[in-house]
Amino acid sequence: MGGVPMETVSTAKSHGGVQGVYRHDSAVTGTPMTFAVFVPPQAANGPVPVLWYLSGLTCTHANVMEKGEYRAAAAAHGVILVAPDTSPRGERVPDEPDNWQFGTGAGFYLDATQEPYARHYRMYSYIFEELTALVAAQFPADMSRQGIFGHSMGGHGALTMALKHPDRFRSCSAFAPIVQPSTADWSRPALEKYLGTNEQSWRAYDAVALIEDGRRFPEFLVDQGLADPFLKTGLRPELLEVACREAGIPLTLNMREGYDHSYYFISSFMADHIAWHARRLAA
Amino acid sequence: MGGVPMETVSTAKSHGGVQGVYRHDSAVTGTPMTFAVFVPPQAANGPVPVLWYLSGLTCTHANVMEKGEYRAAAAAHGVILVAPDTSPRGERVPDEPDNWQFGTGAGFYLDATQEPYARHYRMYSYIFEELTALVAAQFPADMSRQGIFGHSMGGHGALTMALKHPDRFRSCSAFAPIVQPSTADWSRPALEKYLGTNEQSWRAYDAVALIEDGRRFPEFLVDQGLADPFLKTGLRPELLEVACREAGIPLTLNMREGYDHSYYFISSFMADHIAWHARRLAA
Repeated sequence: MGGVPMETVSTAKSHGGVQGVYRHDSAVTGTPMTFAVFVPPQAANGPVPVLWYLSGLTCTHANVMEKGEYRAAAAAHGVILVAPDTSPRGERVPDEPDNWQFGTGAGFYLDATQEPYARHYRMYSYIFEELTALVAAQFPADMSRQGIFGHSMGGHGALTMALKHPDRFRSCSAFAPIVQPSTADWSRPALEKYLGTNEQSWRAYDAVALIEDGRRFPEFLVDQGLADPFLKTGLRPELLEVACREAGIPLTLNMREGYDHSYYFISSFMADHIAWHARRLAA
Repeated sequence: MGGVPMETVSTAKSHGGVQGVYRHDSAVTGTPMTFAVFVPPQAANGPVPVLWYLSGLTCTHANVMEKGEYRAAAAAHGVILVAPDTSPRGERVPDEPDNWQFGTGAGFYLDATQEPYARHYRMYSYIFEELTALVAAQFPADMSRQGIFGHSMGGHGALTMALKHPDRFRSCSAFAPIVQPSTADWSRPALEKYLGTNEQSWRAYDAVALIEDGRRFPEFLVDQGLADPFLKTGLRPELLEVACREAGIPLTLNMREGYDHSYYFISSFMADHIAWHARRLAA
């Protein structure tokens, strides 16, 4: 792909728009990166808002593209939806193949500072800088109107990116987000390996800690299934609820009876979330 | 599973209803068979209509369950959606592993008469008799209100079942159906292996031939993508159009600019089809 900013892997017309998969050589991660973009039909008439969807542990760009059921709502509301991968991948990328909570599929939307991870595991800068510039250059995107949401680890990514950059994002929501990764069993080992043992450095990638440290965002929408097996140990939305209350950040937290952690849950409330973002991304 | 009519593989709440996957020992195919059922929230108040979705070549029950985007509409309209597998599977089942148009994943919704296929490849009787009885017994289904639809090979299955049993099905639609399998390159070899060289016997599993032979159905709805690579060689909806016109069967044939043969196409018009069936399945 020398000199070519990105390669089209596939495109298909869907719900009046185009669902594409693209690949490019990332200078930030030092690997090829694959991502999915849905462009709604309204983009034929000029740039439209951009909604970033960050996926959870073990996912690629493809999970939400196949199971997320977002295209009908994105087409109805006229928003581009971008779904990045969740980590760098490839033979050069250090990994723990048997560990689904670290390494490949588990980039945690941070910039690693520790060896041997610091060279490739830089999903924060990858998405926030490089992929954002690529989307701005290659798609009919109105970059002055961006929203961000995600699921689980990707909910963590969305909340932290929004809190650190309220100038960039107008809206932020999450499905079953990891709200305090620095104290959850399933994320602490990853943060230590990526960021080192000084837990102060983890606070830059922890939504509750960012709020405690003074970061603010206009409001959040969170949906959480009550039958989610990770609810009480890994997700703990009540921690976000307390932090938001103390900080005066309006939080709409919908606890959903009977729903689990899967895309059967996410897809059930996807249209609600996209409509919510679309109202906030209106010109 | 001795004595147990069916085993629950998984269930998940979705769009207010329950998406389940089930397995049972089929006497008709002589194998375990897996199928998916979505039960909408309205079923809590009594039996609801049943919509059968028959899948295309290479698919299992899972493709439409994951990519079909049917749950929102099925929940909105209060219909059960049943998605059977496309063939028997297992070590005892004769197959041509390198041939995606025959054998596993390619049962063509017929009862084979030729050895070595006649013992297991009996998807017609499996769905029409055994699985229907199981659904009636195990789910809150109003079996007096059944509709049927499908994609590609499954569109063929839906059209032929409806034409042969207008007493059973009130409504029938299809996405990119194979309308005349007995003359299409990709299905002729399968029909010959399953049914023998006497092509007269193939007419019982050929929608256009069934209409020519006097079978009737109240009306059909068909959506077909114009960018479908199989349009001109394998699908040929114009043959159905001619047969329906000559037989006086109302056919709504929507030719969709830019759409291909994939679930990106199917999902785009899934809600339209479910709404269309629901109107015809209303009490």
